[in-house]
Order: sequence, then structure tokens, then C-alpha cells
Amino acid sequence: MQLGLSVSDSDVSSFTPLVVLELADDTKAEAITWLLNRIRDKQQNGGAELLVNQLLFPAQDDQKPNPNVFLVGSTLQRLLNGAEDVGLFKEFQDGTMRGFTYANRESFKDFNGDGEGVLSDAECQYIIKHELDTLRAKNEEHVPGYPKLKLYPGKSVVRRLQSKGVLIQYFPLHNKEDLKRLSFSWYKKFKLSFQPLDDIRHYFGEGLALYFGFLEYFTFALVPMALIGIPYYLFDWEDYDKYVLFAVFNLVWSTVFLEVWKRCSATLAYGWGTLSRKKAFEEPRAGFHGALGFNPVTGREEPVYPSSKRQLRIYLVSVPFVLLCLYLSFYVMMVYFDMEFWAINIYNENPDIATSILLFVPSIIYAVVIEIMNLLYRFAAEFLTDWENHRLESSFQNHLVLKVLVFNFVNCFASLFYIAFVMQDMVLLRQSLATLLITSQILNQVMEAFLPYWLQRRRNKKVHKRMRRLMGDKELPLLGQVQLETEMNTYLGTFDDYLEQFLLFGYVSLFSCVYPLAAVLVVLNNITEVYSDAFKMCHVFKRPFSEPATNIGVWQLAFETMSIIAVVTNCALIGLSPQMKAYFPESDTQLILIVVTIEHVLLAFKFILAFVIPDVPKHIQVNLAKLEFDSLEALKKRRRALGR
Amino acid sequence: MQLGLSVSDSDVSSFTPLVVLELADDTKAEAITWLLNRIRDKQQNGGAELLVNQLLFPAQDDQKPNPNVFLVGSTLQRLLNGAEDVGLFKEFQDGTMRGFTYANRESFKDFNGDGEGVLSDAECQYIIKHELDTLRAKNEEHVPGYPKLKLYPGKSVVRRLQSKGVLIQYFPLHNKEDLKRLSFSWYKKFKLSFQPLDDIRHYFGEGLALYFGFLEYFTFALVPMALIGIPYYLFDWEDYDKYVLFAVFNLVWSTVFLEVWKRCSATLAYGWGTLSRKKAFEEPRAGFHGALGFNPVTGREEPVYPSSKRQLRIYLVSVPFVLLCLYLSFYVMMVYFDMEFWAINIYNENPDIATSILLFVPSIIYAVVIEIMNLLYRFAAEFLTDWENHRLESSFQNHLVLKVLVFNFVNCFASLFYIAFVMQDMVLLRQSLATLLITSQILNQVMEAFLPYWLQRRRNKKVHKRMRRLMGDKELPLLGQVQLETEMNTYLGTFDDYLEQFLLFGYVSLFSCVYPLAAVLVVLNNITEVYSDAFKMCHVFKRPFSEPATNIGVWQLAFETMSIIAVVTNCALIGLSPQMKAYFPESDTQLILIVVTIEHVLLAFKFILAFVIPDVPKHIQVNLAKLEFDSLEALKKRRRALGR
Repeated sequence: MQLGLSVSDSDVSSFTPLVVLELADDTKAEAITWLLNRIRDKQQNGGAELLVNQLLFPAQDDQKPNPNVFLVGSTLQRLLNGAEDVGLFKEFQDGTMRGFTYANRESFKDFNGDGEGVLSDAECQYIIKHELDTLRAKNEEHVPGYPKLKLYPGKSVVRRLQSKGVLIQYFPLHNKEDLKRLSFSWYKKFKLSFQPLDDIRHYFGEGLALYFGFLEYFTFALVPMALIGIPYYLFDWEDYDKYVLFAVFNLVWSTVFLEVWKRCSATLAYGWGTLSRKKAFEEPRAGFHGALGFNPVTGREEPVYPSSKRQLRIYLVSVPFVLLCLYLSFYVMMVYFDMEFWAINIYNENPDIATSILLFVPSIIYAVVIEIMNLLYRFAAEFLTDWENHRLESSFQNHLVLKVLVFNFVNCFASLFYIAFVMQDMVLLRQSLATLLITSQILNQVMEAFLPYWLQRRRNKKVHKRMRRLMGDKELPLLGQVQLETEMNTYLGTFDDYLEQFLLFGYVSLFSCVYPLAAVLVVLNNITEVYSDAFKMCHVFKRPFSEPATNIGVWQLAFETMSIIAVVTNCALIGLSPQMKAYFPESDTQLILIVVTIEHVLLAFKFILAFVIPDVPKHIQVNLAKLEFDSLEALKKRRRALGR
Repeated sequence: MQLGLSVSDSDVSSFTPLVVLELADDTKAEAITWLLNRIRDKQQNGGAELLVNQLLFPAQDDQKPNPNVFLVGSTLQRLLNGAEDVGLFKEFQDGTMRGFTYANRESFKDFNGDGEGVLSDAECQYIIKHELDTLRAKNEEHVPGYPKLKLYPGKSVVRRLQSKGVLIQYFPLHNKEDLKRLSFSWYKKFKLSFQPLDDIRHYFGEGLALYFGFLEYFTFALVPMALIGIPYYLFDWEDYDKYVLFAVFNLVWSTVFLEVWKRCSATLAYGWGTLSRKKAFEEPRAGFHGALGFNPVTGREEPVYPSSKRQLRIYLVSVPFVLLCLYLSFYVMMVYFDMEFWAINIYNENPDIATSILLFVPSIIYAVVIEIMNLLYRFAAEFLTDWENHRLESSFQNHLVLKVLVFNFVNCFASLFYIAFVMQDMVLLRQSLATLLITSQILNQVMEAFLPYWLQRRRNKKVHKRMRRLMGDKELPLLGQVQLETEMNTYLGTFDDYLEQFLLFGYVSLFSCVYPLAAVLVVLNNITEVYSDAFKMCHVFKRPFSEPATNIGVWQLAFETMSIIAVVTNCALIGLSPQMKAYFPESDTQLILIVVTIEHVLLAFKFILAFVIPDVPKHIQVNLAKLEFDSLEALKKRRRALGR
């Protein structure tokens, strides 16, 4: 089967392939012809006006890889037009960031001669993705060859093919040269330095670059805490004043650094042109379904699903389910503590080797159960959020994040809360905190980078072997690369990476006055985390599409909430400490009142601080105001030129 | 002295006068000629292109009123152009709100034949004010005749004349017909009904209409609290469960109604076209001074004042001054309590008529001192905020509001806090609360409406008498009206009105579980408040310029902060109540812990509620999104029409 132009290694030069499109291998020929025609068709006719070719495998291949792999590229002019469509902001000649327009293309900073240099690879791929996503059905009633794949005017073709499994995946290709350069400046040198955030953003887009920016910032922000924490560990400081001092410093510091991060991320986002960029209208998710109706905003025909029904599903099913899971998590924790006591009792009655080994059994079982519960819950949360039938990917993500966040928080910290506030055993708290922190760090690094890397290496070897068998020792750059990347795992977004940092922040801040060394451990963890995350992005996963982002979104809120909870827990811990109690031997009441007062003052201070520190640095505010002023003035001028 | 065209009662018909401009009576003739020419000059030449005439008094007037009073009007076409300049939003034919453009003027709903009906009186006056404010110096080095009144290209002429006292005032004229109709539908009928908010907005602008909208909403929102409060008073309920129930209801209710108000004000602002309207670039305040430099946003030459210097002034002078005043307020309060005890002691030693009168002396002295302190502080706060040299009126207002708010809060509530939490005397608290609430209500109504009305009436009579003496019994509609209004007091904005509601909200919510009747009193007060405020706007003060507003601004924050403080105080009051203490006879500790837990749960609940309730109603979100979508689509279409 060979449709239209095709790419083999000989005529690759006809265009630079940027995006790979993989259809199911039993896709009907007429559907493929139709899809390729729609993609190639002129924009006036409602096509995407992109270049697309089939990837041809040598005939003698006996392992039969999927033949329906297509490469998508574009002319430069189409990309520049597309850049205006998606509303990219680029650096203007005068150094400010302005919305890119094709008409003014020559006034942008990196524009030279033929237009190369303005758009990064990742931006080109993002534009192609946008054009593919907004390729809409005209008057076709269904996908040719598939009477059941109904279409209606305005429906995104790609979304429909995707939701029915005809389009298996589409992803951007790696650029081997750029990747080499990036990975060298990023993690292949052993000199400590800042991460090349601009290069990361160039290659992977703003969303991922912001994650790495946050990771770096968070790690640096923890260094002062770590430095102050070390003497506590070395000199075994146990005085109450010192702990109080440390806790207060921690609480204020965590507020300040979260506020300052907003300014940093605004600065980054301004420099990357995402801060002033207007959000494009999101297409409905591939899985969104509903009765056909009219979108009140665009007036287009599309499935509509009443938000009251969604609210009912959320509040009557999802919320009770989450609460039930939380209850279950508490229940498992209580069983763990029962087992723990039972093991200790047996050991105390009969202290020998067998029973001393038995002492570890409950912890191990509990740790395993927690992991299993997290996994099961994640599936359930994804299923439920999907069933809630959110129209937009962003609202789907927010609801998923919230569900997972609450459960993981409880699952990870419930036992610590129980030890701290019900058992009030500070020594055990310190031990459990250290154990949990260290094990979760080790587990994370293994599960997140080394395991996928090992699996990927096995797969690579298989592909390489097959290639070598096929073509002898000739290099097969494009064919081999596409085949390799098609089989790589898909990077599912920054969710898990942020979640990990969120939990680490919890370990550092919630009980900071009991275990000042936590910050040191997290700093050490994050230094390796930068390397393993960078490595996994470059070599373990498929290249992800660039995600424009102006901030870390819902995670900012999550971190801020954690820092508020930390105020409450730390104040309570200080109130419970025996050193503090010794100050008020005659009455608990006075002690509690003082602690509660301090807590309220700290909380008020946090809010005032958050209010006083502006979220966007002054010079960026000025630049944004200038942009707006200029566009207003231009409007006025145009109006006057029209003769009034 | 007679310059250019002039208005006497015979040729008023040449244009409708909308705004009055009063210059100092010793203004030099050349300055007046220059100013009038600039106002009349065509826009191409940098003029305001408005109509302006001098108000002429009959020659035989011996009392010599200020001769330099000018009337400003405009042609309809100029006003329609100005409406586009200031970015007014108007109702389109399809019922949505769209930015008014002169080119599309015929597609707007109320546009008929010659263009009447689109702009309300208040909007015309707002446009004229905007055009006057943005009348900029060209290459004049100083105001003609005043070598010391320096000008530079781009400086607002009106601001400069105002800051040096040459321009005494400019204000919009009342429209007697409309005013009669408005005051009839507003407060002259004794049937209970909603306020005619749209008419108020039509006549006074959005800022004031929002205040009255809030006043009405707040009053209605208090009705449930009042209804629940009445049986507590009637049946003398003193059980702790009932108080707890009432307090919890109050706290949740106050959160809900503040959140719902945001939705209401968004709905109002959308209907009035201010919600999607972009803020115009504010001119610097008249009093703003600094070295001549370049505005980084507009690139225009204007005074600049480094914000670091302003920050220093705020944090090193203003903040310590406010803290000192707060300390002073506390000190005065302590003196009051000392006097109170001293009076009680004397009475106890020697209970006769003289000493029983003495019992009231401390309270009276304290009330008078509080009023004096509030007044003095207000002057100091205005002086300090002026000295901080804010560039924009809005930032000046915010800093002033914050200063006055904090001090008034402490001054009004400090003694109540002291009685509640230090003396823990609930009976005295209830008494003091009732006394303070009732006296402040009576005082407010007198000071705010009746006193100014009485003064105004005296002034009116004088003017009428003079007019009659001059012209016999002939009516003098315009001349008399202008003279009357020139001498009326200026309405200083909604600040004091909001402040009053804020303090009333404090009385209702802070100690609600001790005095459930407070809501009833506030509802009664607000019903008369609507009438007295409406009356004072229509007959006591000069008509104010319309102020576009999308919400109640910093007051939303103030009310929300109050409702957070109310959670803390109410929980503490419940914890202190003897009924509650009886439940935990053995240990205070347990009681305190439970109260603190409940408080934290309530606070968390408040934040979640505020987070869950969307700030803008769904249908308005859809309309706003539609507007944005349409403008994006129009942009795309234009781009394609340009041939790409």
C-alpha cells in the first residue's frame, strides 16, 4: 500500500519530518487516502495545508512493523502563518515581547532572510499539532470506510480518529543534533551549574522547562533550611528555643520562597512569550461525549453535556468515593498500628532472632500496601474523572490532580500525623519520618528512571538488531529512529514529577521542627533528581509536544496549602514538646492559648506577606502595560487615519 | 470681561451645557483665552473640540459672584467619538455587550436616527471629563500669564491648573427633569421595592450604583440573620447549643453571601458594560510631583518619582505612625476603663444622684474622644498618603482606605475586644455592643444627611433670595441652578458610606453569638440609610462625575477579612461561655482543643467554599468567552481577506 508521495531514506530531503502519525495497521485504505488528502488540502478548502508522507519499510522485512506510519512536515511559510494562528509571542527588535504576525515578521529579532530562526523546533511541532487538532470535518457524515465513525461539520477529525482507536498516536520526532547538544549542556558535564532552562524550553517547550525551573528553584530554596538543619543534627540540639526558632524560620521562609517563585515564573514566562499570550480556545477532549448541540461560545455544532449532570456526578459519586478511600486508608493505617503493637508485644515476651525479624514485618507490609493502594486509587481516579466527562483537558487534569493529591497526602502522611498527635511519640515520629523519606526517595528514583531506562535499553537492542539484520551495517537514520521512538513509552506529563516534589515538601515542612535533617536529604535527592529527570526526558520517553505554560498552575496552590498546614502542625508539635511543657508546669491551658495565638499570628503574617509581595516583578508589569498602551495607541491612530 | 461666545439665558439653546468649569475670580484674561481656545480647538490640532461658553451674570448684581464660570458641552458626533476613545461597552443588537465603535454605531441597540439615546447624560459628562483631563500641553512652556505654572509637552492642562488653584473645580450639572423622575422612583414613594439601580447608574454612574446595589444586597442578606435573631431576644434563649448553632449559621452565611455578592456585582457590571471594559490609562494625580523624566509605559515626558522612595516613606514613616496611633487608641481605651472603675467605686461608696450621673461621664467622654480621634486621624492619614506621593488616584485611594480602615476598626472594636476577652464579662459586652451600635447609627444619620441638608437649605434660601431681588419673580433656570450647584458641597466618593457598612458588618458578625439582635438593628438602620443616602445624593451634594466600576474593589477584601476575624472571635466567645465550660467541668484543656479544632475546620470550610463558588456566573462567562472568540475569528477573517 503506497499512497501519494512517500518517504524512503532516499527522498527524505524533500521536507523535514517533524511529527509522526501512527494509524492502526488494519486501517482501511480509503480512510487513509481521505485523511492524507484532508491534511494536504489548502486552507481555503478547509485542509491543514501540511506536508505528509508514508514511511516505507524495506520489502524484505519479515517482522512486519506497522506499515501505517506517516511523517508530517510543513513549509516555512505555513509555519509562520500558523505561528500567528496559535498566537505565539516573540521577541521584537526593541527587546519587548510581542504577538507574532506574519505581516510584521521581519521586525522580529531572530528573523533572517528566509524566515529561519524565528521558530524553534518545538514551536514548529506545536504549530503542526495545533493545525492537525483543528482540522475539522466539512460535510462528511462519517470517516470513509467506517460508517460507524460519525462526523459532523466542525468536528475535529484527529480527535474522532483518536477516540475510536484508528489513530493510535501522534508525537513529535527527536532532533538528534539538538538533543545531543542539549543533553551535553544539561546533565553530561559534572560541573555544578544552573540548568540550561532556555535550551530545555527550546527543545521541550515551556511546560517542562517550568518544571525544571521549579525543581532547581525549590532545591536552592531548601539550601538555607538544610544549612541550618545540619548543626541540629551534629550537636543534638534539643532545646525548645532552638526548635521554635527553626520552625518559625521554616514557616516564614516557605511563604517567602513560594511568593518569590511566582515572580520567577512570571519572569521566565515573560521571556518565553507565554505570559501575555492569550489562551487559544481549547478543543473538547477526545473522550468527551454528549448529545449533539451548539457550543454557546463558538456557535459550532458539537457534543454538549450539561454541567449540572457533571456536578451531580462529581458531588454524588466522586466526592463520596474519595472520602471512602480516605476512610479505607485510615483503616489500613490503624491495622498497621495494631500489627506493630502485636509484633512489639511478641518481641517483648520472647526476644529472640525470629521475633526481632518479626518487628520489621508490619512496616514492610504497610509500605507495600500503601504503594498498591496508591496505584489502585490512581486507576480509579482516572476512571472516575473520565466518567465525569469534562469537556476540556485542562478541567479534566485539575479534577484528577485534586483527587490524587488529597489521597496521596493522606496516604503518605496519615501515619505520621497519628504518631505525632495521637501517640505523641516524638522519637518514633523522627524515626518514621526518616524511614519514609529515605525509602520513598530510593523507590522513586528506581521506578521513575532506572526501570524504564532498563526496559528501553532492551527494546533498543532488539530494534537495532533487527535493523542490522535487515540492512547490514548501513545506517538507517530516519527509519530506525522513527521505529525506535514509536515504541518508546509516552511521557504522561509533569504530574508525577510535581507530585513527588509536593510530597517531599510535605516531609520537609510539616514536621520540620522534629527532624531538621529532612531538608538536607531532600536537597541531596533533588540534585540527583535533576539528572535522572533530564536523562529520562532525553532518552527514555518519546519526545512530548511542547505545552505553553505561564506558571505551575494548580501546583502553586497545592504547595501554598501545604505551607499553611505546616504552620498548624509545627505549632502543635511545639506545643506538645516536653521542653515547652516544662515552661508552663502549672497549667496546660496557658500553654495552649499561647501556641494558638502564635499560630494565628503566623497565619495572618503569611497572608499579609503573600498580599504585600507583588506576583509580577515591576519591570515586567511595566513591559506588559507598555504592550497594552501601544496597542491602544495603534488603534487610535488607525481610527484617525480612517478620517475621523 | 467677555470672551468669545457667551451664554446668557437668552441663547442657552445653542448647546446643552453638561459640565461647569469654575476658575479663580482673579484669573488673568490671557490664561482664560488660551484655555478656552485649547478646549475649542480641533482634535487634529491637539484640542478637545468641545463647546464652551462663559456664564454671564446680569450687570446689576451687586454681590459679585465669581464671573469666571464656564459651561462646557459638546456636539453629539464628538461625544460618540469620545465614547469609543474611553472604551465604553454598549448593548449590541444581539443582546451582548460590545465595545462601542463609531463605525458600527448603527448596530447598537438604542441607536436611533441621529444618534440620540445611546449615551446617557452621565456618560456624556464622563466623556467630557475624560477629554478635558487628557487635554495636553503642546509646546507651551507655561500657562500664559503665569510664568510660574510650568508646562511641558504632554502634561495634562487641567491637572496643572487644578494643582495650582487656578481651576477651582469642575463638575457635572444636574438634569432637573431626570433628577425629578429618578428621585420619585427611588425614595419618594413609600412602597417597599427594589432600588432602581439601572436608573441610578444612568444618572450617577456605575460606582455609585454599585454602592447602592451593595447596600440593598447586604440589607437583604442580613434579613435571615435578623429573623433567626429575634426569637433569641424574645424568648431569652441562653442555651449554649442554640448560640453555637446561631454562630455557625452566621459564619457560613457571611461567607456565602460575600461570595454570592461577587457574582451579583459581576452580573450588574456586565449589564452595564464595565466588566469587559479595559481600564483606560490613568493620568497622574493632580498632586503628584517629581523630577521630569520619561514614563516607561507611555514614553511620554512626565514627572517621575522612584517607587523605592515611596516604599521607604510608607514603611519607615506611615506604618510606624499608624502603629503609634493604634497604641494611642489602646492607651485611651485603658484610661477609659480606669475612669469607669473609678466612677463605679465612687458610686458604690456613696450611692446618690450625683454619683449615679457620674457613672455615665466616662462613657460620654470616651465616645467624644473616639470621634475626635477618628477625625484627627483621618486628616493625618490624608496628609500622609498625599505625602507618599502616589502617582495614581487609585493607589492613593487604596493606601488611604487601608490606613483609615485599620484605625477605625481598632478604635471602634478595641473596647469590645477588651471586655470580651480580657474582662470576660458577657453581660457588659452585650450592653456595650448595643449602646455603641445604636449611638453610632443615630450619629451617622445626623452627621451624614440631616446636618448637610440643613446647611444646604440655608444656602439655597440665600441664593433664591438674591435671585429674586435681582430679577423680580422671573425664573432664572440656568443661572440660578449653576450658582446653586457651584456652592453645594462636593460628594467625596463612596468611602464613608462603605466604611459605615463595614463597621456595621463588624457589629453584626464579630460578636454575633452574644447579641443576636444586632442584625435586626442593622437591617432597620439600612432601610433608613437607603433613603437618607438617596436624598443626600439628589439634593445635598453636587452631582458627582460617573465612575466606571466593575466591583466594590478593596471593600470586598475588607468585608472578607472581617468575616475571617469573625470566625476567630465567635469561636473564642463560645469557648468562654459558662454554658460551654459546664460541659467540660474537669479540664479547660479539652474544651480549648475542641474549640480550636472547630475554628480551624470552619476556616478551612470558608476557604473551600470561596474556592468552589465561581466568581462570575456561568452565562456571563459564556458571553465573555464569546466576545473574545468573535474578536479572534474576526481577526483571522481579516487576515485571510488580506490574501494570505
